[in-house]
Amino acid sequence: MRPNITDPRPTALWLIGCLVAIAIAVAAETPPVPYPDGFRSWMVVKSMVVGPAHDSFANRGGLHHYYANDKAVAGYRTGTFPDGSILVDEAVVMKEGEGRATGLLLEGERRFLDVMVKDAERYRITGGWGYEHFDRADQTGRLTEAERGTCSACHAKAPADHVFSHIRP
Amino acid sequence: MRPNITDPRPTALWLIGCLVAIAIAVAAETPPVPYPDGFRSWMVVKSMVVGPAHDSFANRGGLHHYYANDKAVAGYRTGTFPDGSILVDEAVVMKEGEGRATGLLLEGERRFLDVMVKDAERYRITGGWGYEHFDRADQTGRLTEAERGTCSACHAKAPADHVFSHIRP
Repeated sequence: MRPNITDPRPTALWLIGCLVAIAIAVAAETPPVPYPDGFRSWMVVKSMVVGPAHDSFANRGGLHHYYANDKAVAGYRTGTFPDGSILVDEAVVMKEGEGRATGLLLEGERRFLDVMVKDAERYRITGGWGYEHFDRADQTGRLTEAERGTCSACHAKAPADHVFSHIRP
Repeated sequence: MRPNITDPRPTALWLIGCLVAIAIAVAAETPPVPYPDGFRSWMVVKSMVVGPAHDSFANRGGLHHYYANDKAVAGYRTGTFPDGSILVDEAVVMKEGEGRATGLLLEGERRFLDVMVKDAERYRITGGWGYEHFDRADQTGRLTEAERGTCSACHAKAPADHVFSHIRP
């Protein structure tokens, strides 16, 4: 059966439905967080080892370095992070040294990056910070909307502008 | 007995003796290496843990971060370090986390800094690099001339311009 092309109502309803669906999708989806190019040159705020006895070891075990770009370093000092602040939690696999290096724990491959980017307007629905996770050398983020929400809900409990860490002197 | 002030020879001999002694002292003593102000903001080239099973644990145990200033970063990339390059090996005491942090190894107090400064002319007698060790928050170096010689003799075996480390990607 051919559609009734003389009655404009079905097409109008379909268009309105599409627009509503797009509006809902745009409202619910946080903008992407870019890969933090050049972060290895930034200040290392602090480091720690997530060892086998920690309950996050399976997902997060290894040596962690927390990096801050210049804007974020200023944010640590004032307690308020300006737009453009970027924090990176780099997890690196640790490997035991051999031969003369026996007893050393050395850095192996990068495991992942967890990234926070401050933009009060752009990331309004997740508390002014965008969150992303990059596996190994992958420069494409992998977080679902639900996972970004989980990041945001936990970081909202942090003492200063969604940030838990402090700069080690 | 009054000295014989009419005979200039004793005074001349004494002066010559002093000059020779000063010349020997200057020749044998390397110039001091200053405290590396601001190093915590520099690039961390690599990190490692010196654990209890390593034979240097008593003196060097803990988390080590190797920092490079901008000139030294350029040196790593070219293989030749320009004058003004500074490398810092920071050793930090590690402490086990408690409560929710059980299974984490966290950074405690700074243990020491080992510093290398490149100046081909100034540190000529130790291979163009000056070496120093700063305990904890102490900003006064503690190496003897013999210890500087030991640093220099070992670093002379390094593959590139007295430097053993490489930048972790």
